[in-house]
Amino acid sequence: MARLVMKFGGTSVANIERIRNVAAHVRREVQAGHQVAVVVSAMSGKTNELVGWVNDCSKLYDAREYDAVVASGEQVTSGLLALVLQEMGIPARSWQGWQIPIRTSDAHGSARIEGIDPAALNEGFARGEVAVVAGFQGVHEPSGRVTTLGRGGSDTSAVAVAAAIGAERCDIYTDVDGVYTTDPRVVPKARKLDKVSFEEMLEMASLGSKVLQVRSVEIAMVHKVRTFVRSSFDDPANPTPGTLICEEEEIVEQQVVTGIAFSKDEAQITLRRIADKPGVAASIFGPLADSNINVDMIIQVVSGDARTTDLTFTVQAADYERAMDHLRKRQAEIGYEALQGATDVVKISAIGVGMRSHAGVAARAFKALAEKGVNIRAITTSEIKFSVLIDKDYTELAVRTLHSLYGLDKAA
Amino acid sequence: MARLVMKFGGTSVANIERIRNVAAHVRREVQAGHQVAVVVSAMSGKTNELVGWVNDCSKLYDAREYDAVVASGEQVTSGLLALVLQEMGIPARSWQGWQIPIRTSDAHGSARIEGIDPAALNEGFARGEVAVVAGFQGVHEPSGRVTTLGRGGSDTSAVAVAAAIGAERCDIYTDVDGVYTTDPRVVPKARKLDKVSFEEMLEMASLGSKVLQVRSVEIAMVHKVRTFVRSSFDDPANPTPGTLICEEEEIVEQQVVTGIAFSKDEAQITLRRIADKPGVAASIFGPLADSNINVDMIIQVVSGDARTTDLTFTVQAADYERAMDHLRKRQAEIGYEALQGATDVVKISAIGVGMRSHAGVAARAFKALAEKGVNIRAITTSEIKFSVLIDKDYTELAVRTLHSLYGLDKAA
Repeated sequence: MARLVMKFGGTSVANIERIRNVAAHVRREVQAGHQVAVVVSAMSGKTNELVGWVNDCSKLYDAREYDAVVASGEQVTSGLLALVLQEMGIPARSWQGWQIPIRTSDAHGSARIEGIDPAALNEGFARGEVAVVAGFQGVHEPSGRVTTLGRGGSDTSAVAVAAAIGAERCDIYTDVDGVYTTDPRVVPKARKLDKVSFEEMLEMASLGSKVLQVRSVEIAMVHKVRTFVRSSFDDPANPTPGTLICEEEEIVEQQVVTGIAFSKDEAQITLRRIADKPGVAASIFGPLADSNINVDMIIQVVSGDARTTDLTFTVQAADYERAMDHLRKRQAEIGYEALQGATDVVKISAIGVGMRSHAGVAARAFKALAEKGVNIRAITTSEIKFSVLIDKDYTELAVRTLHSLYGLDKAA
Repeated sequence: MARLVMKFGGTSVANIERIRNVAAHVRREVQAGHQVAVVVSAMSGKTNELVGWVNDCSKLYDAREYDAVVASGEQVTSGLLALVLQEMGIPARSWQGWQIPIRTSDAHGSARIEGIDPAALNEGFARGEVAVVAGFQGVHEPSGRVTTLGRGGSDTSAVAVAAAIGAERCDIYTDVDGVYTTDPRVVPKARKLDKVSFEEMLEMASLGSKVLQVRSVEIAMVHKVRTFVRSSFDDPANPTPGTLICEEEEIVEQQVVTGIAFSKDEAQITLRRIADKPGVAASIFGPLADSNINVDMIIQVVSGDARTTDLTFTVQAADYERAMDHLRKRQAEIGYEALQGATDVVKISAIGVGMRSHAGVAARAFKALAEKGVNIRAITTSEIKFSVLIDKDYTELAVRTLHSLYGLDKAA
């Protein structure tokens, strides 16, 4: 008897009718003889409502109270789904994070799962029950306080539960039917992938694909949890398989590039004519790191006069104003002549484990983009991906260009 | 430094603005030097929304899942109030039932509080924190499941917390400014009571006054928790004291009758010409008790032929159909000739500890009602109250008549 985790997001449980549809998916797997744990998000809109109230109460809120309030959404859905399953004659019970427990760090609002004790869930399976687990939440045991895992955290809950109970696979049901070569709303020729490796999925999630939370892919990769991304809107009696995220070895026909991701959530900052002396990078990036501002792409070029240097880097758009403020206040200390910034930029990335064994993959992109008149502001590369920062206006053009260039377009 | 429990119901925390008003009341008590535990209900309407969803999911729902879902309402309010207090500069944290813990029985949906461990709350007081406790909920520790205490259960949470932490008093803030001699919507001349004894309040709550949950008064009486019923809509800077529920000895000017309560939630059942043999009462009331149908007033009179007897009793209106059904199915077994029922009845009660030392208090009522042409269907008396069952149409007339008769009308 195989074990299975099924995860359903907010739009899949938006109302009682949709919760019944979720229950029909669960029933199919139970009838197939599986022991099933279901992980659910809050009904769509509920988390936003709760977050809105928290913000109305306090601008600089205590993250512990934020978590206590916001975690209630998943608690409601898990109870309701358990009731619908029972009504169908399927034994079920709901589990809140603290009841299992799902132990986390105390980083309230974006806590990390540290461990899940499978004993209570195993006892439920032995009684023949479906476990309906409230996603997105856990408990920090030393303080006994409820924690949440950050937006998209229910994906992480699902994969972590799958690892803890030794599930054969983890099915992430969502409002799309799988992982695509790129966003189909931007490139109508985007293809659904049958399989994608953990490492590629990790890069895609990190670089702007919103299908899965980054942390969930990390856990899946470390614990080798075979994870499907599939549609909750399929007919429960006749579902399509979706996309399997698995180990590289399982993927026979490997492309050089598997997907194109993009993120508009970027901002570019350039410091002109910095005195080129030791320790200058530390004087810039140290204070930013201390303020929890993550710096991504970094490029340093010697400026025209050869005695100074220009430094360009990117930050999350949400951190842009704070970062600029920091740098303005430290102009004398750092010793730059001019500070420039831009938020009308986009980061476009190509991802594929095939890059390891193929040279010149990125160079082909630079050439193709130049031919379309797309100016590249910055470049970063790593073993299995490269990213370019360009003007936001060229987003669609650049994504389509790279998608075609690497042979990802579906047959007409 | 005195300890204090303050309880706020659903209308008092209906939105963020009202929660701020609640916080202003709390601030006043903190600034007066008190250690404060606040007990809150769900925002008004939220519990009904949650209960509606549960009913949509499953008609014969699992009460354990009902509790898991419905308890979320108080969780939200407690977190929000903690945030507003913090925003005012008052250290505060929220507590769910399982976090304290508030230990209860496993009678899900109407669990009884079995004990509250004050250690965690005491540590919070030592840190200078206001404890914001989610009312209405607890935990059944052997199963680790969330429980709820039934409608109005937050009153019980408040009084039980007050007993556990040794509070000097428990203030129940509500949408009325105290306990009245009767419902002011029925009798405009109703007076607010300055003080009422635990025993009288217990009778009033049992007999139809909706100001406090019966169980909360029981706990207050047993643990001698001085409890005020007062208005949450007062100016927080200038509140009125409300009504004190306290021991009889504290009340100097004792009236014979303190209040008139009424309950429209009654139904009358009469069995005609029952064979008058031993064990017949048991054959009627035993099965009703087994089905959790509470029987209240019982009157037995010998019928005209002197060999049989007529039996009249009342049940809660909600149980009426089930009770009638039971009795119809057992006609042969019980041996009655006719079954009659009525739901257009009301129970009117007069309560006062003074009845112990004054004879003929009830007799005056029977005479006064007869003079107004009000037919009495049934009567019950006990040490400090008597009740009459009459036609519902005469409710207002009868309540006003008794209110005047016992000198409860306020001066014009």
